[in-house]
Amino acid sequence: MQTHDPPKRVAIVGASGYSGEELVRLLLSHPGVELASVTSRQYAGRSLAKVFPRFAHHEAARRLSFAEPQAEALAGQAQIVFLALPHGVAAEFAIPLLKLGCRVIDLSADFRLKSAAVYKEYYGRDHPAPELLNQSVYGLPEIYREAIRQASLIAAPGCYPTSILLPALPLLRAGLIQPGNIIADALSGVSGAGRKAEPEYLFAECNESMRPYSVPRHRHLSEIEQELSLAAGAQATVQFTPHLIPVNRGILTTLYLTPADPGASASELSEKVFSCYHTAYGAEPFVRLLEGAALPDTKNMAGTNVIEIAWRVDPRTRRLVVMSAEDNLLKGASGQAVQCMNLLCGCAETAGLV
Amino acid sequence: MQTHDPPKRVAIVGASGYSGEELVRLLLSHPGVELASVTSRQYAGRSLAKVFPRFAHHEAARRLSFAEPQAEALAGQAQIVFLALPHGVAAEFAIPLLKLGCRVIDLSADFRLKSAAVYKEYYGRDHPAPELLNQSVYGLPEIYREAIRQASLIAAPGCYPTSILLPALPLLRAGLIQPGNIIADALSGVSGAGRKAEPEYLFAECNESMRPYSVPRHRHLSEIEQELSLAAGAQATVQFTPHLIPVNRGILTTLYLTPADPGASASELSEKVFSCYHTAYGAEPFVRLLEGAALPDTKNMAGTNVIEIAWRVDPRTRRLVVMSAEDNLLKGASGQAVQCMNLLCGCAETAGLV
Amino acid sequence: MQTHDPPKRVAIVGASGYSGEELVRLLLSHPGVELASVTSRQYAGRSLAKVFPRFAHHEAARRLSFAEPQAEALAGQAQIVFLALPHGVAAEFAIPLLKLGCRVIDLSADFRLKSAAVYKEYYGRDHPAPELLNQSVYGLPEIYREAIRQASLIAAPGCYPTSILLPALPLLRAGLIQPGNIIADALSGVSGAGRKAEPEYLFAECNESMRPYSVPRHRHLSEIEQELSLAAGAQATVQFTPHLIPVNRGILTTLYLTPADPGASASELSEKVFSCYHTAYGAEPFVRLLEGAALPDTKNMAGTNVIEIAWRVDPRTRRLVVMSAEDNLLKGASGQAVQCMNLLCGCAETAGLV
Amino acid sequence: MQTHDPPKRVAIVGASGYSGEELVRLLLSHPGVELASVTSRQYAGRSLAKVFPRFAHHEAARRLSFAEPQAEALAGQAQIVFLALPHGVAAEFAIPLLKLGCRVIDLSADFRLKSAAVYKEYYGRDHPAPELLNQSVYGLPEIYREAIRQASLIAAPGCYPTSILLPALPLLRAGLIQPGNIIADALSGVSGAGRKAEPEYLFAECNESMRPYSVPRHRHLSEIEQELSLAAGAQATVQFTPHLIPVNRGILTTLYLTPADPGASASELSEKVFSCYHTAYGAEPFVRLLEGAALPDTKNMAGTNVIEIAWRVDPRTRRLVVMSAEDNLLKGASGQAVQCMNLLCGCAETAGLV
Repeated sequence: MQTHDPPKRVAIVGASGYSGEELVRLLLSHPGVELASVTSRQYAGRSLAKVFPRFAHHEAARRLSFAEPQAEALAGQAQIVFLALPHGVAAEFAIPLLKLGCRVIDLSADFRLKSAAVYKEYYGRDHPAPELLNQSVYGLPEIYREAIRQASLIAAPGCYPTSILLPALPLLRAGLIQPGNIIADALSGVSGAGRKAEPEYLFAECNESMRPYSVPRHRHLSEIEQELSLAAGAQATVQFTPHLIPVNRGILTTLYLTPADPGASASELSEKVFSCYHTAYGAEPFVRLLEGAALPDTKNMAGTNVIEIAWRVDPRTRRLVVMSAEDNLLKGASGQAVQCMNLLCGCAETAGLV
Repeated sequence: MQTHDPPKRVAIVGASGYSGEELVRLLLSHPGVELASVTSRQYAGRSLAKVFPRFAHHEAARRLSFAEPQAEALAGQAQIVFLALPHGVAAEFAIPLLKLGCRVIDLSADFRLKSAAVYKEYYGRDHPAPELLNQSVYGLPEIYREAIRQASLIAAPGCYPTSILLPALPLLRAGLIQPGNIIADALSGVSGAGRKAEPEYLFAECNESMRPYSVPRHRHLSEIEQELSLAAGAQATVQFTPHLIPVNRGILTTLYLTPADPGASASELSEKVFSCYHTAYGAEPFVRLLEGAALPDTKNMAGTNVIEIAWRVDPRTRRLVVMSAEDNLLKGASGQAVQCMNLLCGCAETAGLV
Repeated sequence: MQTHDPPKRVAIVGASGYSGEELVRLLLSHPGVELASVTSRQYAGRSLAKVFPRFAHHEAARRLSFAEPQAEALAGQAQIVFLALPHGVAAEFAIPLLKLGCRVIDLSADFRLKSAAVYKEYYGRDHPAPELLNQSVYGLPEIYREAIRQASLIAAPGCYPTSILLPALPLLRAGLIQPGNIIADALSGVSGAGRKAEPEYLFAECNESMRPYSVPRHRHLSEIEQELSLAAGAQATVQFTPHLIPVNRGILTTLYLTPADPGASASELSEKVFSCYHTAYGAEPFVRLLEGAALPDTKNMAGTNVIEIAWRVDPRTRRLVVMSAEDNLLKGASGQAVQCMNLLCGCAETAGLV
Repeated sequence: MQTHDPPKRVAIVGASGYSGEELVRLLLSHPGVELASVTSRQYAGRSLAKVFPRFAHHEAARRLSFAEPQAEALAGQAQIVFLALPHGVAAEFAIPLLKLGCRVIDLSADFRLKSAAVYKEYYGRDHPAPELLNQSVYGLPEIYREAIRQASLIAAPGCYPTSILLPALPLLRAGLIQPGNIIADALSGVSGAGRKAEPEYLFAECNESMRPYSVPRHRHLSEIEQELSLAAGAQATVQFTPHLIPVNRGILTTLYLTPADPGASASELSEKVFSCYHTAYGAEPFVRLLEGAALPDTKNMAGTNVIEIAWRVDPRTRRLVVMSAEDNLLKGASGQAVQCMNLLCGCAETAGLV
């Protein structure tokens, strides 16, 4: 009986960025765990309540102060450690924490790829712990639920990958679309860039601006194609164009997909897609399949861990257009990481997320 | 010598919407024409300066009052009449104005299509004056410059079509891409919906929202495919997904294009595209081809009549990705209409637009 | 023991506006009550989940459909009824619901004033049920907690009044400031205008706009001065200037106050104000007194029922400047109404609000 | 005849910030001057067109490259030099440029104060060139027009001071209001903070945020009180509260003023204020006095050099409430500096600004 166990103690390393702050928010109110430690070099010594006034009504936020990140100290305080650190830095903490017996949920890209060669290709340096790549589990609960329960190292997916993978994976598994001909056009809110003081993310540079970036080869392509290929049983190739949009939160992705069977009629394809999605996600608490004329809107997802999915088979072009919306900091980052933690802990999967 | 001619008198019918207001702004300061009349049922009797305080420093705005729209009166006051009216209403004014000898620049969709059957298919009713469809000239100066000079009826393109056609037409004319396999993913600011008091365009419904709409068959597809097909000499088919984005102004379009020659290498294709664009637009005052690492950003286009175009050949996918940015109310509507008027009047094409 | 009682059944009349929607959100997740009915003329017959997709993961939202508002039916379904209706309409429902034995929490202005004459002066018509004005309790829990517990009719305050009254009332009660010399400069997000399809609240009219309105005599002055005068024991007079600001949510109010004792030094006054606020609000769960250099920021309050208050005694001017921030739909409307309901029901005052 | 003179050559030192960029925009299109040099340490060697794509259609922007700032070189290239530099840095350039015979228009605060002691009090350091303080002219053309024509050193006012001084000065000169009892509540867009990469100005920190800052003693108080006192012939004291608002551009200021004559009726005061403003500003090209029910809105001023002013005498409180709106980068900075330059050069005062 989980209710008789003492609550698991958890820590957040790098709690001052946007996804770290969102983890703080979720874990302060989580019914099944206790937030035991938060670290931040920048804010070390200051209380959570001072740095983030919006949490000041939580007794724990007034009590808990940011510490310098230090693996031994963390392992003494927490059984589960979240890493909300930049790519490259996360691995430096994951390695000792795992040795010290912690279970680690990493929000960076450091352990998402299975291949150290692909890592080097996309991130431009040797992987610091290639032996851990096969041990890590990609933290997409709808796909890897059972593996996550047992994992010691979880690599939580990025915000763009989640918005592409959840809509595309069931279609590839069912063989309904061509893996080599996938286009993903994605729009992200500015919090996706992190709390980095760079001129291009200043208010007056983003407001009234819409702009593509990292065309045609964004780093997240590596994990997207890895997961799509696993589902397809064949090499998947994705054309991915991210855009920066002046909203705080949200990812809206539009996928352009080509049916595997060119002979199928639009209505046959529609039926198969409907059936495929309802089989895959009909019982999922955090995937919502839109019906009727409804189309996704990020404002409906803001503050929730839900991803919305809608689709249309276009009888004129014979293409399948799939659209998804999510909160980039929740289902696209911290909410999904907590969903993984719930599986890890034996909590209800939705605990602290509804 | 144009400077010895008296300035042409122009009128705007429906001057109270966003594109009408933008026409007012451009024409009040235009060196070669005189704004002689503005109409608005809603504001009839009130001065331009009262309805639009931002124009109050113009003497003409204090003098000129909105009138009820009436064709005979307009024909007595102006030689050129802009129609900034809803689809369907514009034709009612165009027909008598043309008979009365005015030259008409229509910003609605009423005269953009060459086929009355396609009009009925997309707009759901019989065209009110099918005999005018062949007489009208599609008002894209970079493509139809000479015809515009002679036209009595100009159908100024919509904001989405401009953002798609200018990047795509030279490629189709040059046979570089497949006409049947075009994807256009487009983002529009909210002014594109017009000054309509509908709940879905309220501030609190649009702010922090990103959402697709009219999927998969937006009305503007009809004029887009018409013009692309003319350029290709074959039926073009477009997958078009518009999205509503919380900015006042701007359209950002990303095109996914498939090379016509599957055997060409990425670098060969790059060279051909570069050459094609520079031949087509190197001397155009309102098309800017971006170089180096630069990508389009709508905020750089706001308030200008310029469209920015950048492109990338993706060696991984062998696709051509083309991106364009424009101000939806200028190059996407009123600025382009004034550019057409300049051609019509024998003014410098850039008069009043720089 | 409240946990052994069956949960109270509650209804929302007018659940389709912004404050109605926010009530739905709060009550769907409230641990102590059951949302038994929601009404909306516009959406009658459609489920909550369809109209508001963001609630679709709640089982109750999928089950519950909007009904036409009808007093007898409501009284049969609910013990407590929230009225989220326009001013004037609310009274029409409150009167029969009270007769039928319901307890009513009205979010409109209909029962906030004690004087029918002042109502007529500010709202331009005779009050429909003047006999209820003395029976109603002004729903500011920090001030009228005990009366609210016993009330059958609660008039929940407006968003501007809450942002002014909570900072000003303790100072007036303690005689620290002059009641006749109060200036309140307030900034409101656009959701404060309601979900009304009027051109002035369109995205493109509000974005990039800052503007005052209803100067110098906004209707809410009537309830503001009523409550301030009651606290002061003398007529209070307020200069109130509301401004519309392009954010979805939030009110930021800056008060300019003149000390009652002109001879007191700045440091004496500072001490008295500190002591006054800590005595009044030190134990309040939804009032946060900012310390040190911190100043209020509406983004920290968004989504919470908390009001933040900071103050400065200016040694140069001898004035007291007090600043408050709140979420206009929560502490400024629906959150506060639920706080009142918690008192009414005997729930913990913070139930469903943290 | 100015048209026969060769155009004056002008330079901008620090052309990469927001007000520098706006100066570039205005001067590239100015009919009476030639932009001869722009400097920026950060962008030295790159062309204006590359750094600011929005200017790329100007031939001069493609030709002109940013240089390292160097006084002798500047004096060789330009007769008039704009300094768009941080406070403190501007003086370092002004001193040698003046010696080398340039006329200098400084947009920083370095030469706005007449008293080196007040400078030290507010800016925390000794003034680097106190002997220049009396030589400099405060660059508010509506007040100091004749002195500006003759000045060698112009200190262009800050954005907040302009929004307060233009509404308040005529009232003080006419003795209509008390100088010791002025409250100024001001709202600023984020570009007012400059193009500084600091976390508090990131998009996700400003969007959906409204917040006061620098309470109760902002540095600009020093120049505000200096100018008000000069107009009043007595010490003016101002309570000033700036707020940061999520718009790119604009300042909206609300002034709370107390009539000097407590015995005057509201209608008498109204008449006097009307007369005072129309006498002061009736013929000013860049001040617009609003009539009837109109109130200022920053979106109407964006992109213009105009300040809008409206006022109300409140019969309930006997106070005068005055509201102003301006574009902080134009009438609040660069537009006003160009207006000064026009006076300096003998150009029409509105040249390049309408």
